Amino acid sequence: MKFVLVFLFLFFNSYSFAQPNNFVQDSIVLDKFKAYTLTESVCYYDLQNLCKKIGHRISGSTAAAKAVEWARQVLINAGADTVYLQPVMVPHWVRGKEDVILNLKNKKKIKLNPLGIGNSDGTNGKPVSAPVVMVNSKEDLEGLQPSDVKGKIVFFNHVWDQSKANPFHEYGGCVYYRWAGPSLAAKYGAVGCVIRSAGSAYDSFAHTGSMRYDSAYPRIPAMALSYKDAVFLEQLINKKEINQLTINSTSYMDAEVLSYNVVGEIIGTELSNEIITFGGHLDSWDVGEGAHDDGAGVVQCIEVIRAIKNARVNPKRTLRCVLFMNEENGLRGGKEYARLAKQKNENHICAIETDAGGTSPRGFNFSGTEAQRNKVKSWLNLFYPLGVYDFEEEGGGADIGPLKENKVTNAVMGLFPDPQRYFDLHHTHNDVFEQVNRRELSMGAVAMTMMVYMLSEYGL
Amino acid sequence: MKFVLVFLFLFFNSYSFAQPNNFVQDSIVLDKFKAYTLTESVCYYDLQNLCKKIGHRISGSTAAAKAVEWARQVLINAGADTVYLQPVMVPHWVRGKEDVILNLKNKKKIKLNPLGIGNSDGTNGKPVSAPVVMVNSKEDLEGLQPSDVKGKIVFFNHVWDQSKANPFHEYGGCVYYRWAGPSLAAKYGAVGCVIRSAGSAYDSFAHTGSMRYDSAYPRIPAMALSYKDAVFLEQLINKKEINQLTINSTSYMDAEVLSYNVVGEIIGTELSNEIITFGGHLDSWDVGEGAHDDGAGVVQCIEVIRAIKNARVNPKRTLRCVLFMNEENGLRGGKEYARLAKQKNENHICAIETDAGGTSPRGFNFSGTEAQRNKVKSWLNLFYPLGVYDFEEEGGGADIGPLKENKVTNAVMGLFPDPQRYFDLHHTHNDVFEQVNRRELSMGAVAMTMMVYMLSEYGL
Repeated sequence: MKFVLVFLFLFFNSYSFAQPNNFVQDSIVLDKFKAYTLTESVCYYDLQNLCKKIGHRISGSTAAAKAVEWARQVLINAGADTVYLQPVMVPHWVRGKEDVILNLKNKKKIKLNPLGIGNSDGTNGKPVSAPVVMVNSKEDLEGLQPSDVKGKIVFFNHVWDQSKANPFHEYGGCVYYRWAGPSLAAKYGAVGCVIRSAGSAYDSFAHTGSMRYDSAYPRIPAMALSYKDAVFLEQLINKKEINQLTINSTSYMDAEVLSYNVVGEIIGTELSNEIITFGGHLDSWDVGEGAHDDGAGVVQCIEVIRAIKNARVNPKRTLRCVLFMNEENGLRGGKEYARLAKQKNENHICAIETDAGGTSPRGFNFSGTEAQRNKVKSWLNLFYPLGVYDFEEEGGGADIGPLKENKVTNAVMGLFPDPQRYFDLHHTHNDVFEQVNRRELSMGAVAMTMMVYMLSEYGL
Repeated sequence: MKFVLVFLFLFFNSYSFAQPNNFVQDSIVLDKFKAYTLTESVCYYDLQNLCKKIGHRISGSTAAAKAVEWARQVLINAGADTVYLQPVMVPHWVRGKEDVILNLKNKKKIKLNPLGIGNSDGTNGKPVSAPVVMVNSKEDLEGLQPSDVKGKIVFFNHVWDQSKANPFHEYGGCVYYRWAGPSLAAKYGAVGCVIRSAGSAYDSFAHTGSMRYDSAYPRIPAMALSYKDAVFLEQLINKKEINQLTINSTSYMDAEVLSYNVVGEIIGTELSNEIITFGGHLDSWDVGEGAHDDGAGVVQCIEVIRAIKNARVNPKRTLRCVLFMNEENGLRGGKEYARLAKQKNENHICAIETDAGGTSPRGFNFSGTEAQRNKVKSWLNLFYPLGVYDFEEEGGGADIGPLKENKVTNAVMGLFPDPQRYFDLHHTHNDVFEQVNRRELSMGAVAMTMMVYMLSEYGL
């Protein structure tokens, strides 16, 4: 693309904050946030440090403990008025050595590259070998004869539907097999469970994530296969070349560990008892570096504090950055935060989460009253020049869900970044710092800062 | 991010094509395009082939000739009713061995990693050594005494303004120094010109692109430095550690070469003499693989043909995919296309260009009458579920500019993808296939197909 087009752009566009009069002063402040975060800020280098110096950080791990101390320090340096930890007991799932081996009828053995599904029991290092039964859906499985499943390993070969414009609308359907598939298979007598990854990439990275055992059924081992491994297995099954599958794993759920939410606040100058919570989660899965999920959200929330302090503005309400622990496999941090807020009878105006990746921001989803939504929508012109245009979707976030459930607040929001790359990466070895673009990450931080500030000044 | 949030999304959202009645039938067709391109199509693999089997392809090169034959064949395979070539003579700039060497006062020499600015003359391999004078702007240079510049090498150290939300709004300002800087320096007696790259990345990839010599002044050599090299040079100049700069280059402008625009059409069933042109450019700079610029646009335009043919619909008007040659350093293809269209007195309804990268589509910029714009905007609901929301900007494209200048059409449009990553990559060694995401590229192709189809059915 040459600059001829660009001159045309420039000629006809200012992209300045053309605003209704009442937001003129705000737009000057918001512009300061933007200029700072896009130019001088260290938001992107925060992410680099978190990803490269600490790396992945599953709840209960040494890395998660390091991340807590790192976040506390970075929040202090960012200028928060007060920084503190909220203790919370978290599960500690430990990934061991994991194998899925195809035992072919021609006596050959082929090792795949699986990822055990998070929270699942291993096999104590004792191989579980059985014939495999492949199904595409829950309904397929339920339509089988008991003898077709009993004593076998079920392969949920549920295929990601690429045709959806928004991959988040597909994830919910696919992830069922990861979350509930193992116990569904066990219900029908299966001795093991293998799933096709709940992700959108056509690659060799298996996609882990949370599952839960139904206490009514045996706790069978559960593994996720990458797209390529799943297609390979499907082909071999269709050609009837497989004798048995072997699952072997030393993964296990360890004892619970004391961990922390990390909280940093800017105390409101006029309505300090009115709180705006905004957060992401500090823990990650135990593969990759948790860059998009949710290192990006963590550093964006820290940036809100830094950008507001840098602009030397004094927000009316109290702004509370909460870096939650254990979103991925227990939600203990989110639950504990809501319990404490309820117990202290805190007055929460709104809670915002950023946990959908570090790509360009496109909007905020929202759950609350129509009047509240309309108030947020009245600010749309301030956000539009950033490419943040969509305030229509219902939403919120996992960690702030308990705040709404416990009626601590009735308004929850979630930053909505461009969704196309997220499920190519998240919960895989491929969710690393290099996958995050500096400008995209920073634009998300700017959108968060702007929204938090407007909520601080105008409430809901 | 866990699936709790996603269930919430799913619960409240359908993201289906909720349409005013008159577009119900269209939305069914558009949905077919989307499903096909996002799932079955080979659009992404077209880009892989273009990038990996042919690679970069500057006008007049053997690779550009290969790209012409490749594109012709792919358009035939995509199902175009007719495919033909439009001959056009193009310049052939040849990059040679290029050096920028810092000669320090302590006698050390440091080699940088420059890229010669496209179209510039080299030094015939004879080093040009001179003291360096650093300026940040045109005004800085014009404020100097003649003796400060005469016989020296001018370093335009103009810094990319990262604070702009849309990097396209910055490019126009920065690129002035690449395009006109060398002759401006020569006007004041400089013997060489070095510029800080007109790009947004903080990295070591220099950014090439087009320049033009003003015939009134000597044709001095011109080099671009990466962000890191430019900062390094700036620091050494400020510390007064530099004695001289040496520029050495064997780059040159070769004789013109016969090349081609590649055209593929679907002939309209009802109004075949009414033409909708849509295109990208087949040539690229001679570094990287021209993946975002403009391999992405090329394969998206081919996909328009393929998706429409796959859906077995018969567009009313004639759809003409034009893969232009020589956008980057001459615009010969765009000019020749417009000349022929004018000569044949063709009836062009609208022209659309996709030449701003293969990221997620966000809108279409538009130049035409207000009534035309309103017609396009009346289709917005069809595009909104794709995240394509912005039809407000003025725009068009370089290759289709001559169509408008020659009054062949008065309506031009450009696909507007998310702009954040583009200037980190384009015109550098880093603009490679791996930088393009399959879903993002395909979403852009879907948006293009939808727009072309709507124009075909409803005109402007």
